[in-house]
Amino acid sequence: MKIIDGKIDAPKGFFATGLHAGLKHTKKDLGIVLSEVPAQAAGVFTTNQVKAAPIYVTKEALSDGILQAIIVNSGFANACTGAIGLEDAKTTQQYLAEKLGIAADKIAVASTGVIGKVLPMKKIKAGIDVFNLNQSEPQAFHEAILTTDKATKEVAVTDVINGVEVTMAGVAKGSGMIHPNMATMLSFITTDAFISNDLVQEILSEKTEVTYNQITVDGDTSTNDMVLVLANGLAENPEIEKGTEAYQKFAAMLDYVSAELAKKIAKDGEGATKLIEVEVTGASDSLAARLIAKKVVGSSLVKTAMFGEDPNWGRIICAVGYAETLIDPNKIDMWIGQQQLLKQSQPQEFDQTIMKEILANETIKILIDLNVGTESGKAWGCDLTYKYVEINALYHT
Amino acid sequence: MKIIDGKIDAPKGFFATGLHAGLKHTKKDLGIVLSEVPAQAAGVFTTNQVKAAPIYVTKEALSDGILQAIIVNSGFANACTGAIGLEDAKTTQQYLAEKLGIAADKIAVASTGVIGKVLPMKKIKAGIDVFNLNQSEPQAFHEAILTTDKATKEVAVTDVINGVEVTMAGVAKGSGMIHPNMATMLSFITTDAFISNDLVQEILSEKTEVTYNQITVDGDTSTNDMVLVLANGLAENPEIEKGTEAYQKFAAMLDYVSAELAKKIAKDGEGATKLIEVEVTGASDSLAARLIAKKVVGSSLVKTAMFGEDPNWGRIICAVGYAETLIDPNKIDMWIGQQQLLKQSQPQEFDQTIMKEILANETIKILIDLNVGTESGKAWGCDLTYKYVEINALYHT
Repeated sequence: MKIIDGKIDAPKGFFATGLHAGLKHTKKDLGIVLSEVPAQAAGVFTTNQVKAAPIYVTKEALSDGILQAIIVNSGFANACTGAIGLEDAKTTQQYLAEKLGIAADKIAVASTGVIGKVLPMKKIKAGIDVFNLNQSEPQAFHEAILTTDKATKEVAVTDVINGVEVTMAGVAKGSGMIHPNMATMLSFITTDAFISNDLVQEILSEKTEVTYNQITVDGDTSTNDMVLVLANGLAENPEIEKGTEAYQKFAAMLDYVSAELAKKIAKDGEGATKLIEVEVTGASDSLAARLIAKKVVGSSLVKTAMFGEDPNWGRIICAVGYAETLIDPNKIDMWIGQQQLLKQSQPQEFDQTIMKEILANETIKILIDLNVGTESGKAWGCDLTYKYVEINALYHT
Repeated sequence: MKIIDGKIDAPKGFFATGLHAGLKHTKKDLGIVLSEVPAQAAGVFTTNQVKAAPIYVTKEALSDGILQAIIVNSGFANACTGAIGLEDAKTTQQYLAEKLGIAADKIAVASTGVIGKVLPMKKIKAGIDVFNLNQSEPQAFHEAILTTDKATKEVAVTDVINGVEVTMAGVAKGSGMIHPNMATMLSFITTDAFISNDLVQEILSEKTEVTYNQITVDGDTSTNDMVLVLANGLAENPEIEKGTEAYQKFAAMLDYVSAELAKKIAKDGEGATKLIEVEVTGASDSLAARLIAKKVVGSSLVKTAMFGEDPNWGRIICAVGYAETLIDPNKIDMWIGQQQLLKQSQPQEFDQTIMKEILANETIKILIDLNVGTESGKAWGCDLTYKYVEINALYHT
């Protein structure tokens, strides 16, 4: 696998653009991704019972496993907007279908922004009307999907599968409300690989568990989250079949792209100054390891300690203890960076100067060995800062 | 029931005092409560798998349902201190037994403070030696159990049970790490009622679910929490039996004392400026109602919105949606104070001026009607502020 400097249109046959339609004050707020041909598609969606209108509309569009385009707006979540919201999401789909000359049910719709306000459909129609389809401008799409994000988040890779070069690219937005089951997180992945939607769905569902669902910013799960993968087959590789080396390679690409996007989302959590990675090893099963890792990285006390650059292992072991999975409280080893803090749950002497340097970094790795089994898991989050409080307290509906 | 202005020694035959033993810089850090006679006792303890030494020692002391004294230190949690910690908790018990001339196994031990540091036993012994047993100084006990608390928390009530006046008093400490299952929360309740420990335990366990376990400050559950009730029978009321009016009255007293202490703990959460009360009605069962109420009051986004005095119902309904219990996302009514924000999940017009006044108060009540059943539940929490981040980021181990 090779990491390349590509955007969402890097795989063959993909086009993307974005513009300012007037949903936000001045920034880009409407974007599309389009494949030359209908693509095999897969998706995962928020588990929140209060779902935004585009979630319903996109799930329906995805029901036959084929998508050709995605339209995304930021500024308005189109959530808690009732029948009007559903109608608006369908109308958006219809407008874009007419603009692109493709079937409306091949178009996914995604929204992110304020809950409970009805979409300004005139602006959306006007925006769709003026999309320039002659020139792909992927950076404009990457920007159009952002809300409080400080930076665009993208990653692209290539690999040779069955003798043919296959490309995969992903873009995501995140920031606030990022938690377990994909909170106001949007992630779009394109690839020119030839693979069935069943297989893509299988791999996506599996990788979502260990990537997107293992990040947390503040524990809230949004109404609007979705991850979509479009595989248009234009690389013309022999079809990727289950149980083959090709399958493994494709799965590795999707794993890498998803993990990188997830980490970028965690690092750009609202107000964050640090990415925190927690790895739990020696667990009896991998689910338990992931659960504990996420409890630690989600603890407000651990998050503030990391902001304060304090090696507060007491808060860490406390979070390990209240994760709802069985541990042996007397067998825990713990490290921050290379410095061991706990051995068999007892405090160890460590080098304060080196620890200070470790905690001053932008990425902090916490390793917890439960010493009860052989399984492991990871989770990613960020520190809890004054800025987080400022962003979320000053924001007014 | 009558609310009285009493401290932990208000019921007949109780004595309390506290002093500065040098565990903290200048504040009081060691306190005792003593009953003239052995008391019927009940307790609930942290569910964290990493338990501090005093939890083990006190559970053992409580195994026969009889306690006569409680010793509490602040400054050191005596958690993650291994075999030494256990030995120290037992030695503390022994020192006090000698001082008081009672059996060591009638003494409960509680600690709160920094995790992982061994208790300075010389200071504790010296402190126990100089306790003045001639004069009850309950205020000194109330202060000695505090850590980052801004104020002491106490409540006392009396009622006439079977023709005899019975008194009950409670004191608590909380502040940081307050969550579901009683995080670094200590609560001690004394009463002169004559009632068996079995009944007290039954009522305490039941009331803990709807009071202490329904408060949250930051979602962390500590290693040291405990609630103890001592009933010494010196009111000389006819014994309180199950299924009687006397039982109901006693249960109501314990409910009131526990709920008031819980609310005081929530209100004094680290950095908090507001008490937030969430009531969920129209639920299919009371457990679901309590779960949803606690999810809402525990949401960082709701907490920051309350700090910012913004009626952000989108964040509230979002938290309702991700509580892991079934709701109908289209049927939710919501009020802040008397102002209705949502009807059947649709936004309602409300008076902005009145809402501003409501949100400026120190106590904010959020009412959520799920409209799917007849059960209800409450939870209490506080806002998330710059001060919370400051307290927890600047604190260094």
